[in-house]
Amino acid sequence: MTPERQPTAQPTPARLFDTINAHQRTEAIKSAIELDLFTAIAEGKNTAKEIAEACQASERGTRILCDYLVIMEFLTKEGNRYGLTPDSAMFLDKRSPAYLGTVIDFMLSPMLTDNFKKLTEAVKKGGSAGGEDTVVAPDHPVWVKFARAMAPMMAMPSQLLARLADPNGNQKLKILDIAAGHGLFGLAFARQNSQAEITAVDWPNVLEVAKENAQAAGVSDRYHTKPGSAFEVDYGTGYDVVLLTNFLHHFDVPTCETLLRKVRASLAEGGRAVTLEFVPNDDRVTPPQAAGFSMMMLGATPGGDAYTFAELEQMFTNAGFTRSELHELPPTIQRVVISNK
Amino acid sequence: MTPERQPTAQPTPARLFDTINAHQRTEAIKSAIELDLFTAIAEGKNTAKEIAEACQASERGTRILCDYLVIMEFLTKEGNRYGLTPDSAMFLDKRSPAYLGTVIDFMLSPMLTDNFKKLTEAVKKGGSAGGEDTVVAPDHPVWVKFARAMAPMMAMPSQLLARLADPNGNQKLKILDIAAGHGLFGLAFARQNSQAEITAVDWPNVLEVAKENAQAAGVSDRYHTKPGSAFEVDYGTGYDVVLLTNFLHHFDVPTCETLLRKVRASLAEGGRAVTLEFVPNDDRVTPPQAAGFSMMMLGATPGGDAYTFAELEQMFTNAGFTRSELHELPPTIQRVVISNK
Repeated sequence: MTPERQPTAQPTPARLFDTINAHQRTEAIKSAIELDLFTAIAEGKNTAKEIAEACQASERGTRILCDYLVIMEFLTKEGNRYGLTPDSAMFLDKRSPAYLGTVIDFMLSPMLTDNFKKLTEAVKKGGSAGGEDTVVAPDHPVWVKFARAMAPMMAMPSQLLARLADPNGNQKLKILDIAAGHGLFGLAFARQNSQAEITAVDWPNVLEVAKENAQAAGVSDRYHTKPGSAFEVDYGTGYDVVLLTNFLHHFDVPTCETLLRKVRASLAEGGRAVTLEFVPNDDRVTPPQAAGFSMMMLGATPGGDAYTFAELEQMFTNAGFTRSELHELPPTIQRVVISNK
Repeated sequence: MTPERQPTAQPTPARLFDTINAHQRTEAIKSAIELDLFTAIAEGKNTAKEIAEACQASERGTRILCDYLVIMEFLTKEGNRYGLTPDSAMFLDKRSPAYLGTVIDFMLSPMLTDNFKKLTEAVKKGGSAGGEDTVVAPDHPVWVKFARAMAPMMAMPSQLLARLADPNGNQKLKILDIAAGHGLFGLAFARQNSQAEITAVDWPNVLEVAKENAQAAGVSDRYHTKPGSAFEVDYGTGYDVVLLTNFLHHFDVPTCETLLRKVRASLAEGGRAVTLEFVPNDDRVTPPQAAGFSMMMLGATPGGDAYTFAELEQMFTNAGFTRSELHELPPTIQRVVISNK
């Protein structure tokens, strides 16, 4: 439901109403994933009646949901027959290797969405109104959910990152993966470089997921873990690469700088910190997805943000790093900052 | 979280992530309206710091919210200065006569939004999962909220409708306004035709709002009320026009037909039912806002829908009307069906 601007310059409240009702879009895609509606269509059910039977739902409810998915451009409609768009076939058919339906388990967990119910309060105070129970609380169970739900969408970016930071992939490499989560970023390095040795830091329950993934990747012998807070656990020293993937955005600048000093101390001479982040341009409003991530951090964290490259560079400089470089990671919307000790 | 961004034919999960996160848009516009942020900008505050002070909010939260509003195209940004788009200046500056910020009191009342939290269940059963407490429950207090919150956005459509249905506005006209709510539709007829006499039906508390509006319009002497359910109250007879504005969509077809037979019985010979509705095309997926309204009815009602003209025409025929005609009501997204007794 893209707001339809009148061909004239006449003001219209269409965008306002679409935005007020945007929560319905969230619920509609969530329901479609929960009902596994896209897989039913992929399997050849294509009228509301057939899809409803496959999803064990009512025909009326299914028809209304399918029409809404057509309006949102997740489905096509010819006569009374629904079909998948190329994006839906790739990412929402459960049989697709690129299936991403699991992400709702994390992205729409009450932990994240409930905070947005108090957004006005968050704007007033300048940070999550979720009280002590934010995503940065110690050992928060939401991160196990994260590790399981978000792994599928990290397969491609993790490979791209490993290729960017270790293009030859044939030299001994000691890697520290901070807040490893599912572990996929460190594991991508281990996969493409048989001499890479990974040490993963995260909460104990989260590391169980990373270890499962290391086993599945057949690299358990080169996969080590250090359970605990990234701010408190002893990293050890002599790392060639420290990975900071989607971690700094949870914290305010002083907290990031404290962490980066610790990261720097763990690096060998010539070592590098490799940061994957949502990095908006200096205008903070482009590109839209990276810039919009600030809102997620306002809702979910006490002081996190989507930092610009200038801000990240300054943090690394203040923590004693000599030089930081910005890299794009196409086709992802994220960017990489490589900072030299 | 790495949605891809290429505008190529390459599949991309960007739409999926935008849709999953769409609830944040709802909360962001709600917060901006609650904080009266648009009025602050209209009054000349235009940096995050100035806006924050005017809204009694934090600078950080205000900056993140304003940037998000720029991304959503409710604000502009030049350097670190925010400005209003023409739409925002018209509809979101509290000092504007076309201010629509009040609509969130109804459209985002828990009554409506909570049902969407159970959308999967609604799709399964084919109607609202809100139990007995749906918007069609007798004398539901949400309708008083509706009458107060939604009146501002009905000013223009109500005038357009009165002009369409009573173009000369100079003949005696007895009008029945069913589920009158704020009363604006009937009152528009009364305003443009000094010989129009209005009888409004709605729940008693709602009619208090309509009576206030009749008084404000200076037409109390021609404004009568019949408190009670539109399905039960005695309408009386001899009406030239019966108004059915945004009412039929709450009910299933048999219920609508029952009501329309009652409406027909109340009309004088030559009388007309004038229905204002969200009327999708026969494909049920265009135009997007009218078609998407079905989803609202799935979430909020046991059996309501956005009916096509063919469906409405059939209901009127089944109820004994002779002929129905479809009219556009530009620039609104609603349509009008005029049905002759």
